[in-house]
Amino acid sequence: MLNNIKSIMVANRGEISLRIIRACKELGVKSIAIYSEADKDTLPVQMADAAICIGPAPAQLSYQNQEAIISAALAFGVDAIHPGYGFLSEKADFAKKCEDNDIVFIGPSAEIISKMGDKIEARKIADSASVPTIPGSDGAVTEAEKALEIANKIGFPLLIKASAGGGGRGMRVVKSKNTLEQDLTEIMSEAEVAFGDPAVYIEKYLTDIRHVEVQLLADGISCIHLGERDCTAQRRNQKLVEEAPSPILSAAQREDLCQSAVRLAKKVKYKSAGTVEYVFDNVDKKFYFIEMNTRVQVEHPVSEMITGIDIIKEQIKIADDQLLEIKQKDISLHGHAIECRLNAEDPENGFMPCPGTIGNYRPPGGFGIRMDSHLLSGYKIPPYYDSMIGKLICWGADRNEAIVRMTRALSEMKVDGVKTTATFHSELINRKEFKSGYFNTAFVGSLLESKC
Amino acid sequence: MLNNIKSIMVANRGEISLRIIRACKELGVKSIAIYSEADKDTLPVQMADAAICIGPAPAQLSYQNQEAIISAALAFGVDAIHPGYGFLSEKADFAKKCEDNDIVFIGPSAEIISKMGDKIEARKIADSASVPTIPGSDGAVTEAEKALEIANKIGFPLLIKASAGGGGRGMRVVKSKNTLEQDLTEIMSEAEVAFGDPAVYIEKYLTDIRHVEVQLLADGISCIHLGERDCTAQRRNQKLVEEAPSPILSAAQREDLCQSAVRLAKKVKYKSAGTVEYVFDNVDKKFYFIEMNTRVQVEHPVSEMITGIDIIKEQIKIADDQLLEIKQKDISLHGHAIECRLNAEDPENGFMPCPGTIGNYRPPGGFGIRMDSHLLSGYKIPPYYDSMIGKLICWGADRNEAIVRMTRALSEMKVDGVKTTATFHSELINRKEFKSGYFNTAFVGSLLESKC
Repeated sequence: MLNNIKSIMVANRGEISLRIIRACKELGVKSIAIYSEADKDTLPVQMADAAICIGPAPAQLSYQNQEAIISAALAFGVDAIHPGYGFLSEKADFAKKCEDNDIVFIGPSAEIISKMGDKIEARKIADSASVPTIPGSDGAVTEAEKALEIANKIGFPLLIKASAGGGGRGMRVVKSKNTLEQDLTEIMSEAEVAFGDPAVYIEKYLTDIRHVEVQLLADGISCIHLGERDCTAQRRNQKLVEEAPSPILSAAQREDLCQSAVRLAKKVKYKSAGTVEYVFDNVDKKFYFIEMNTRVQVEHPVSEMITGIDIIKEQIKIADDQLLEIKQKDISLHGHAIECRLNAEDPENGFMPCPGTIGNYRPPGGFGIRMDSHLLSGYKIPPYYDSMIGKLICWGADRNEAIVRMTRALSEMKVDGVKTTATFHSELINRKEFKSGYFNTAFVGSLLESKC
Repeated sequence: MLNNIKSIMVANRGEISLRIIRACKELGVKSIAIYSEADKDTLPVQMADAAICIGPAPAQLSYQNQEAIISAALAFGVDAIHPGYGFLSEKADFAKKCEDNDIVFIGPSAEIISKMGDKIEARKIADSASVPTIPGSDGAVTEAEKALEIANKIGFPLLIKASAGGGGRGMRVVKSKNTLEQDLTEIMSEAEVAFGDPAVYIEKYLTDIRHVEVQLLADGISCIHLGERDCTAQRRNQKLVEEAPSPILSAAQREDLCQSAVRLAKKVKYKSAGTVEYVFDNVDKKFYFIEMNTRVQVEHPVSEMITGIDIIKEQIKIADDQLLEIKQKDISLHGHAIECRLNAEDPENGFMPCPGTIGNYRPPGGFGIRMDSHLLSGYKIPPYYDSMIGKLICWGADRNEAIVRMTRALSEMKVDGVKTTATFHSELINRKEFKSGYFNTAFVGSLLESKC
């Protein structure tokens, strides 16, 4: 089914490696897994057609070791490398190294990765494609008068950030016009003292927001969207539960959002799978571009389950220089899908990671259930990587059925030997706020505080 | 979500028990498993809210022991009994016992089970509902002249069967008019000698046929169909591979077929899930009613996967006296689903059952995969029951993707310790005949013969 690519090195680990290997098998392409010494007994290594150890556990010495991976790819003579998510998936220099070695990097070109990875550049592209961005100053402002003008234009509350600041320093929320001039003067002089630079950024401060994102497939000429995902249920900016479609968008809002993402991708002649991320402001009911992710995302399965489209296989076909066979008009959304990212963590103890050895593992099953996981009975969770043990994705004819099915599946799953977030997830999706669909990015945090 | 039923006894074993228990959990209903002594360590027993042993292994002493099951149901005070398929699922006397004990039998009434279970009665109902039946005599014929008249009307080849015969005795295929009179005379006199009754049935003899069936949901007032399933891949009348939709029906044929099934169900005010089975004649491109199954079928998941409708939950809601919320216009078919019935059998040795102990069991996973199985690592397959170890169901955006995904999933599945039919299934679905979609009920048999 592929024309040029006959073998793919899967430059990742865990569930996403398994996901890519499965796609390779369905496409009739040889898969070569890479693994660190700590991962030698894992499922992706067993399931790939071949596997090669590329170094010891710390990721810098293996999964992020570009030279070792390129060498292995050349030694195996693979046609392509799939980077998955994380690790090297958005490293333009790695994509460039692949290009230089005549290996297909399964993702967009190094140039596009680089452009989209630069926040200021990406914002400029979004503006030029008429994709709404969070109202604010276009870059740094050094004059108080100019700052006041912008501030008055975008309204309150707003955020003043010292250009030279960062990590939460030199930042102030201004709630009303009353204190604006004084706040501005103070933060500019504080910035001058602290950083030797009075310049500030001004941005509308959005507090009651949702996180929504649009899945795209683009072949460099045409671009289609697979609807949006809603990832509002987050803890400390980490997505916990994702769903598709978003429970709160109207059909018109959905169309508007998805078309803006398509415009952005077309603007840069995007070629691969990609995701455009937005915040949706619950107050003014508008969405604003945040960034574009030029790789497959952890939560891609929810889009697969409501559209029936295998995103990884399409991504590989695009890398094989095939044009998209699917047209936008062929895509319709069916039912509702929810994903829970299950971690080996102790929710009762500040979500402390719990590496250890899995005793008996039994995935949940039945209609509408998909468990993307590399777990095995007896699997030893290494302490070197993130604590995700799998993604449980449930489809239902409607959102309520998806929640009910997820609740059933979470209770059915058996992961002996380590603490997991399964019960926490079950409680979360059964809270009245989650069930109603109306909540914002602060919901999980406030829920956890109320439990303390 | 249910009004009257608060607890359900699951009067079955294996994967279908598990399927029903999962539906109960999603409906918020208490599930009580029954088990034979041989099944005490099985997954349904572990997963149900309660479980009770109802006797020793042979099914007559446990799963078919109506008195023991009714006693247990009364002892637990359950509101309903779900019989699954096989065992007591089409026993009108058992349904009657439930009715007499104020226990809801999850299926149609004893009267309907009885009517539909009587082949001659069912054929009459089909005729009265304008559902095509295989052309032939309406009952027994005793006069040669009358027999000749019918034979000439329905054409050749035809089948003459002694009324009093059975099990293949007193049956003859007549290929042309040339031998008709002689054949008829011979078989009538043979029948008189053998059975003391010269009466014969005459039926059109269909050799190039497919097996198709329509899934229905009916609440006693309205009836909807979930499209058809194609179960043509059979070995000795045992279904091996089922798919939905049928690869060969046109939209007009599908509509015609499904509407005929709805007519039949409405004729008897059917109330439950049910399936109307047909043969489809590849020669005259017409379908003919065979029988109606008044229970859930083994292959129901393929219909669930292309419609998104949970048939077991709907069946339970109907038994709870709820009217169907789903309307025919809301149902559309998406993609293609294939089910392989996996057996612990040795295809190299005449499909001899291979009971034994499963070593490591690892179900296949990923997008579009559903494994309905009661297997566990270490599970001991008892020799007392059928040899099915699970049903692997794969969904694809089209038939080709479903086949590719099934092939991948079959190779990924790990069932150590016993021989299974997985490899045989993989070969079967990858034969050019299967891939083309054009084959008949003799296909698997001829495939097996060619391998001998």
